[in-house]
Amino acid sequence: MFNVAVVGATGAVGQEILKVLEERQFPVKKLIPLATARSAGKEIVFRGETYRVEATGPESFEGVDIAFFAGGSGSRDFALVARDKGALVIDNSSAFRLDPEVPLVVPEVNPEDARKHKRLIANPNCSTIIMVVPLKPIYDAVGIKRVVVATYQAVSGAGAAAIEELRLQTQAVLEGKEYPPQVFPHQIAFNLIPHIDIFSEYGYTREEWKMVKETRKILHDDNLAITATTVRVPVFRSHSEAVNIETKEKISAEAARELLRQAPGVVVIDDPQNLQYPMPITATGRDEVFVGRIREDISVDKGLNLWVVADQLRKGAATNAVQIAELVIRSGWL
Amino acid sequence: MFNVAVVGATGAVGQEILKVLEERQFPVKKLIPLATARSAGKEIVFRGETYRVEATGPESFEGVDIAFFAGGSGSRDFALVARDKGALVIDNSSAFRLDPEVPLVVPEVNPEDARKHKRLIANPNCSTIIMVVPLKPIYDAVGIKRVVVATYQAVSGAGAAAIEELRLQTQAVLEGKEYPPQVFPHQIAFNLIPHIDIFSEYGYTREEWKMVKETRKILHDDNLAITATTVRVPVFRSHSEAVNIETKEKISAEAARELLRQAPGVVVIDDPQNLQYPMPITATGRDEVFVGRIREDISVDKGLNLWVVADQLRKGAATNAVQIAELVIRSGWL
Repeated sequence: MFNVAVVGATGAVGQEILKVLEERQFPVKKLIPLATARSAGKEIVFRGETYRVEATGPESFEGVDIAFFAGGSGSRDFALVARDKGALVIDNSSAFRLDPEVPLVVPEVNPEDARKHKRLIANPNCSTIIMVVPLKPIYDAVGIKRVVVATYQAVSGAGAAAIEELRLQTQAVLEGKEYPPQVFPHQIAFNLIPHIDIFSEYGYTREEWKMVKETRKILHDDNLAITATTVRVPVFRSHSEAVNIETKEKISAEAARELLRQAPGVVVIDDPQNLQYPMPITATGRDEVFVGRIREDISVDKGLNLWVVADQLRKGAATNAVQIAELVIRSGWL
Repeated sequence: MFNVAVVGATGAVGQEILKVLEERQFPVKKLIPLATARSAGKEIVFRGETYRVEATGPESFEGVDIAFFAGGSGSRDFALVARDKGALVIDNSSAFRLDPEVPLVVPEVNPEDARKHKRLIANPNCSTIIMVVPLKPIYDAVGIKRVVVATYQAVSGAGAAAIEELRLQTQAVLEGKEYPPQVFPHQIAFNLIPHIDIFSEYGYTREEWKMVKETRKILHDDNLAITATTVRVPVFRSHSEAVNIETKEKISAEAARELLRQAPGVVVIDDPQNLQYPMPITATGRDEVFVGRIREDISVDKGLNLWVVADQLRKGAATNAVQIAELVIRSGWL
């Protein structure tokens, strides 16, 4: 049994981490819910008990065995403090993901990388996790030369305030009222915003670079060619991705479907004649990555199209983080 | 001055054709608004005058010079009748688009094709028009080897009832009520449906095949490699597309931007540092195709990513149809 801290316990991801710890009966001896000073004093419920959230500080990690960082500024400020106090840190921020000293882990994809941890393991970006789970069995079977991905990302990826903004702004638009954007740079209700995270090199956003660089690190392939366009859509929860893959060897749609059916963490929903394919409303609240619309790419000799959907607060964040901790404990790598 | 019939005058596209004819001061002598028997008797307003919509029948086209067919079943039943009565037919349905005897025209792209018309010209699919307008200048400048496109299509592409379904269903979901889908196969409010038109060969939808085959016909290039994933999004109006292009010769993002700035029918909005990029809400009601997020594709030697948005009821349907008629008149090809 472990003393477990959750940093950012009041946010969208933090709340989900608490829920996943409870659902999976994670061996929590003592829970220490932490947040910024602004959120300190709020109450959260875990296993039927009410906890008062404390402000994260250098003293918060005394005696903590495992610290989940939900992301945000808390990570940069306190993840290394927690580690130096002896905790295993699972960090959902982007701060350490590309650090060669820090494993970046999706348990179904590169579990062995977790073995080399120095008490700090990074949780990948949500869009990356969701893509790499179905890429992995294809990569292993026939090799992957190039990936072209376009994302359809739900607002919950931007936190609890973003969910509220979509709700209130949608209501306002339906009533013909104004509701100026606060979280997003533009109106998100009944609109699309082709801009997630800040703009960076070559006109790519940081979200797009994350999908490129994190996927390469997780698959241990610096030469994997990837390009991404990331887009915010007016959906509350679960990210979707149109993934186009050029493979090194030929694989039929049927063989890919069978491969994905056997793959850990993947659920194939691919019966278009009966209107069955993955959608955000069916993936929400689930821990698996849903794959459908599996087709050969008619534009190349060796290629596939996949339509991939997963709950980015679950497998894209909280579930993956908790699975990393379970993997480390189970493997005796703590 | 011409006697002009609009078939499907009460639907989403028909209404827009009437609006565009009025705005562009199309030389209408007499307007004949037509629709199915179900919609006959409804009233529409054109240039301040009220017209009673008639049921389309074999006698409807006597003395008609130009007949716009908004799409739907009216085209298969009456387009050839109208033509045989002597009208120039501009048809927005998919019935004749791939017929080698029928020109498929986007005036900015292949105006010369209209010259060979036999009183029947097809208006391409909305997603095809929106993509091919910015593809054309790139195709001419550096050649195009392959296109990978993922669409984000508004509900108005499915007609007036679909717009109402998004509105009412969104309201219901916000109130925690049920609103079973009628127009769409699944809930569209706060959801995505990776399925437009019916499923066809190789697991592609007919919408996806349209983007492949119509683009090849318009660009006169049967070897152009294209793959598409078409997705319905909870947006009222204007389609968006993430377009990935492999070019034959290298072109920089800046050169592509300049080329597109000069291209007819294109507006470049590409200033991400100032949060400027195309979005459905800014394209709605406009006749141009908006292009932004113009980037070199980092995954290939010669490639580009574009983010393309246009009002599919305007440039994707009504505006393009009226522009075809204007082109034919102006060129003396009537």
